[in-house]
Amino acid sequence: MEIAIVTFDGFTDIDVVLPWDLLHRARGDGWIIRLLGTAPEHTSATGLDLRMHGVVEETGDADVVLFASGRPTRTLAASPDYLARFHLDPRRQMIGSMCSGALVLAALGLLNGAKATTYPTARAELEAFGVTVVEEPLVANGNVATAAGCLAAQDLVGWVIERLLGPARRDLVLRSIQPVGRGLELADAAALGDVYATTTPGP
Amino acid sequence: MEIAIVTFDGFTDIDVVLPWDLLHRARGDGWIIRLLGTAPEHTSATGLDLRMHGVVEETGDADVVLFASGRPTRTLAASPDYLARFHLDPRRQMIGSMCSGALVLAALGLLNGAKATTYPTARAELEAFGVTVVEEPLVANGNVATAAGCLAAQDLVGWVIERLLGPARRDLVLRSIQPVGRGLELADAAALGDVYATTTPGP
Repeated sequence: MEIAIVTFDGFTDIDVVLPWDLLHRARGDGWIIRLLGTAPEHTSATGLDLRMHGVVEETGDADVVLFASGRPTRTLAASPDYLARFHLDPRRQMIGSMCSGALVLAALGLLNGAKATTYPTARAELEAFGVTVVEEPLVANGNVATAAGCLAAQDLVGWVIERLLGPARRDLVLRSIQPVGRGLELADAAALGDVYATTTPGP
Repeated sequence: MEIAIVTFDGFTDIDVVLPWDLLHRARGDGWIIRLLGTAPEHTSATGLDLRMHGVVEETGDADVVLFASGRPTRTLAASPDYLARFHLDPRRQMIGSMCSGALVLAALGLLNGAKATTYPTARAELEAFGVTVVEEPLVANGNVATAAGCLAAQDLVGWVIERLLGPARRDLVLRSIQPVGRGLELADAAALGDVYATTTPGP
């Protein structure tokens, strides 16, 4: 099971690292999780550099492809050269986006005539693709899902984990990052050990 | 205003990057936000490498010092050499921790006889320092605060932003990362522009 997060210069930090961390907590058997970009490293909106594990062409071989967000999605969604590097097929791949990553999905023709969600500041641009923007954290149409608002990474990755590993695993992974006293309890310690899958204590 | 996030090999990805991103959204005038470690780069629990902006000794000059979490906090909290590199003073600095980062605060003598919170898997170790562990996302005693559960980064950074920039700024920054339809509305687009402080659209 190969899971790709599509990254680019100017990515929103949380929208890459929160899905990345949650997917690692799920620890599906044989899962390979990779950041794919167009350069050896990409710099976030705030200046963090992350090394890529491969190039965006490799999304064609992934089982799950999640698009990050950030201001540059407007430029990427308007770049024929960038879009031509993707060969995605929602019949055999789960494909999703965070926030304005929906613009790239739309430009790739994956949201034709569909309802979708996006970050408030990208609404008009997504509507310009003929997409009906709805006020929801996650909109899933078959194998294509859009999520909006950074913390909706929980909904997007939850959709992936539930489909691949079932609802119990989804719930445990999401519980592991909730605030103590607000979704996570001190008494949960034993159950959480499994999320880190080691014999040493977790976070 | 200098804000330091103390990072180390094996850090919990979300517990560094979520505070980092939120602090940048606050965009306080003249704020300098830096990752401080003990090496040029540190590798997260999941294998992401982040470049450091300085060394932990520089926390002595910061106005705000936030400790990340991760399994290695147990080793760090037991290392006299590591602890001797910090010269913190809660009379002139705001000092906080995520999850098991509370173990390092305790080892530095910053939680003596206090109530604090920590990640469920670190509870017994924190209690061994004589700390009373309570089931709360955030416990603030004057200038020292502990937060627990990754998403309680919102509470910890919210505490910093509210103290430095006021409650309205805190609320706007936290709103900007909520899921659409669950804390953030599509109609919020205009207000959110300020969080990114540019003329181009946000995430």
